[in-house]
Amino acid sequence: MTQVTEQAPATRFAESARAVDGVRTDTAAFDAWLADCRDRFHTTVELRPLDALQGWSVDPHTGDVGHSSGRFFAVRGLDVQVPGAAVERWQQPIISQPEAGILGILVKEFDGVPHCLMQAKAEPGNINGIQLSPTVQATRSNYSGVHRGKAVPYLEYFRDTASHRVLADVLQSEQGAWFHRKRNRNLIVETTGPVELLDGFCWLTLGQLHELLRQDDLVNMDTRTVLSCFPAAPTAAECAPSYGELLRWITEERTRRERHVREIPLNSVTGWQLRDGRVTHRDGLFFDVVGVSVEAAGREVGRWDQPLLAPRGTGLVALLVREIDGIPHALLHARVEAGHLDVLELAPTVQCTPQTYAHLPPEARPRFLDTVLTAPEQNVLFSAVHSEEGGRFLHARNRYVIVEADPGLSLADCPDYRWTALHDTAALLRHSHYLNIQVRSILACLHGLAGREGKEKS
Amino acid sequence: MTQVTEQAPATRFAESARAVDGVRTDTAAFDAWLADCRDRFHTTVELRPLDALQGWSVDPHTGDVGHSSGRFFAVRGLDVQVPGAAVERWQQPIISQPEAGILGILVKEFDGVPHCLMQAKAEPGNINGIQLSPTVQATRSNYSGVHRGKAVPYLEYFRDTASHRVLADVLQSEQGAWFHRKRNRNLIVETTGPVELLDGFCWLTLGQLHELLRQDDLVNMDTRTVLSCFPAAPTAAECAPSYGELLRWITEERTRRERHVREIPLNSVTGWQLRDGRVTHRDGLFFDVVGVSVEAAGREVGRWDQPLLAPRGTGLVALLVREIDGIPHALLHARVEAGHLDVLELAPTVQCTPQTYAHLPPEARPRFLDTVLTAPEQNVLFSAVHSEEGGRFLHARNRYVIVEADPGLSLADCPDYRWTALHDTAALLRHSHYLNIQVRSILACLHGLAGREGKEKS
Repeated sequence: MTQVTEQAPATRFAESARAVDGVRTDTAAFDAWLADCRDRFHTTVELRPLDALQGWSVDPHTGDVGHSSGRFFAVRGLDVQVPGAAVERWQQPIISQPEAGILGILVKEFDGVPHCLMQAKAEPGNINGIQLSPTVQATRSNYSGVHRGKAVPYLEYFRDTASHRVLADVLQSEQGAWFHRKRNRNLIVETTGPVELLDGFCWLTLGQLHELLRQDDLVNMDTRTVLSCFPAAPTAAECAPSYGELLRWITEERTRRERHVREIPLNSVTGWQLRDGRVTHRDGLFFDVVGVSVEAAGREVGRWDQPLLAPRGTGLVALLVREIDGIPHALLHARVEAGHLDVLELAPTVQCTPQTYAHLPPEARPRFLDTVLTAPEQNVLFSAVHSEEGGRFLHARNRYVIVEADPGLSLADCPDYRWTALHDTAALLRHSHYLNIQVRSILACLHGLAGREGKEKS
Repeated sequence: MTQVTEQAPATRFAESARAVDGVRTDTAAFDAWLADCRDRFHTTVELRPLDALQGWSVDPHTGDVGHSSGRFFAVRGLDVQVPGAAVERWQQPIISQPEAGILGILVKEFDGVPHCLMQAKAEPGNINGIQLSPTVQATRSNYSGVHRGKAVPYLEYFRDTASHRVLADVLQSEQGAWFHRKRNRNLIVETTGPVELLDGFCWLTLGQLHELLRQDDLVNMDTRTVLSCFPAAPTAAECAPSYGELLRWITEERTRRERHVREIPLNSVTGWQLRDGRVTHRDGLFFDVVGVSVEAAGREVGRWDQPLLAPRGTGLVALLVREIDGIPHALLHARVEAGHLDVLELAPTVQCTPQTYAHLPPEARPRFLDTVLTAPEQNVLFSAVHSEEGGRFLHARNRYVIVEADPGLSLADCPDYRWTALHDTAALLRHSHYLNIQVRSILACLHGLAGREGKEKS
């Protein structure tokens, strides 16, 4: 085990969070580096019919779209039943990717301040080509060589952690509406040894990352989820009574709700069809599954085809927050989604694509959506548009909004919503199956607010 | 919230654990009560062909065995792939029961000592008719009235816990080799109000239950799993470094192993067939699925038919234990099983049916099986035969053995085994998906040993 500063991790990261102007890379240098990467790492993405993708095929019997190697991922159908929900049964296409990949951030101290090694990474689904990704963002097919591409840089820090300090290591779910049982291993590893800085990589403080989270479409989804797993302030949260009550509420909600999910052939999914080389819903709602042909410079493989899921419309991810007895709380929603392993995970207060609700019954309109949409401007603490995973989704974007709640907000008839202390969410993040990708993303943004306050006060 | 003694729960339960001779019900009174229950609560079970069960039918297309209401449970087929395992792919019948039932123990203090309200319950699969079950042991179909039977006694304490003290409330898995995604809600609820003692129920201390665990086939599986969830000694286990390392090891193992599971029609399961009214393996191995016709007195419904899974042979559940730096540890196995939600849960050191291995390749022989079978007698701390759930399994029995390990025992080439501090297992038990039913059962037996030592020392 290498020697690392013996200060508690949370304290050291609070310091990194206050370093908003950078230490190793100042803001001007970062801007120049990013512009240079944008210049040099080109990605060209062209739509191409699903049944004409190189290396992929549409199964003649099932209509499933899969890779010729049988690896990576496949697009299949899913039959979902949620008794008692506003929509009790539906079928949909879904991305099936049972392999767990690695999302890893490498951390190293410079001038006593922990820094994160970030990557300027082009993904075919990104609206703007390059975004900031973790040090390593690799599927198992990636790193086990199915890709036949170049070796993944820095992968060795995450595959063999024995000689480093592991700050977080937990399997976390991804979009339950679009993935069937997808999980990635979220890793944060600190090293004290020399690290060669490769082209396209850059050392940033947590404070810089928090500032960058205020910009639209820059800090990618994988970075956001790993950031949410950074060790929190040192509390005995897991021994606190509120943690036990939170766990019991989750048990209650998981018992109260039922969900039955079954993979079915894609060509049997009611209401959806493959036509003109893409899979679409008959009312043009939800999302399409499309094919793309990609040419990239500065990525593992230079040229490839693949399917992408292209959502219709920009989503909304909103978190109501308030202090209760001086402790910051967020209003979380125990939300049943199709693709999670367990019947439900905790989600942000609001998570929806507002335009979808035109088509659904009024009782399906999300609780607190109007509370968020009509919040007075001074209560909106954070607002930015972020992209979801550009390796699987085409131009998938959500507006992330954090709103200070009116203390009089009623939770009557909302057994599936709960004010949750932030220290308890940090305790949950040590485990799988609790916090969904949207709430982890917005918690990363919320941590950024805390760092900013720290700086303004200091 | 009712007022309950303000002592920490773990301390109060340690006291209850030391009360091995009983307070409310002394040992002689218990024996008389049990003998009386055995006399009065008769159950007659007769084998009956699966395709002739009243209320159940074999689907003509799939061969699946299901109830006419569509509730309770069904017997289907499962296709399982575990790349890299000794047996990489197989198919098998499995019980599909996605509903979560309630296993609840009601607790109340008498003379300052907490007591558990236990039930003498006859189950059709029990080898000896009556065993000791929790206060409530009810499927969702049971308590939501699909059964059309009598109301479940004491159910109200577990359905509306608001005015009581909840000591444990967590969804836990059941046999991963026999159930597809089965979970039950394990509840321990303490009340201070008056509780009417109904016929067939009895108040016992934890110490009495621990003593009774030394008897074969008396404390049923549902009691054992709930007992394992009793609040442990007050430690800050969840804040300890060993807990973080344990969680990281689980993440590592869950990433390293792969498992693909798919429900298939029962009549397409390779190597198994429905003949003479039962489903059997071609080599007569593993288990049969049989039908039974039950007549019972003193149960919710007096007469019914149902399928049961009848294992071949008695299994072995063994735990190697030792002290490391003065802290008791158990050797746990990260074990991939077909039916769990997550790819693996932690299992005892050994969990197998020894006779099955005649038929499998030598590399499939369980690690540490011979260590357990050849252990010197003085190292065997516990040995008793217990029954598994008599409502689903016919005469399913395992020998539970706890063995003091040789300190020199090598774990070389065993990345899937780990010495785990008992206070860390207690922390895991607050969550789902971590400890399988067999390890929970044997931990309940192990807690009993600790109580006994406490008494011997005092």
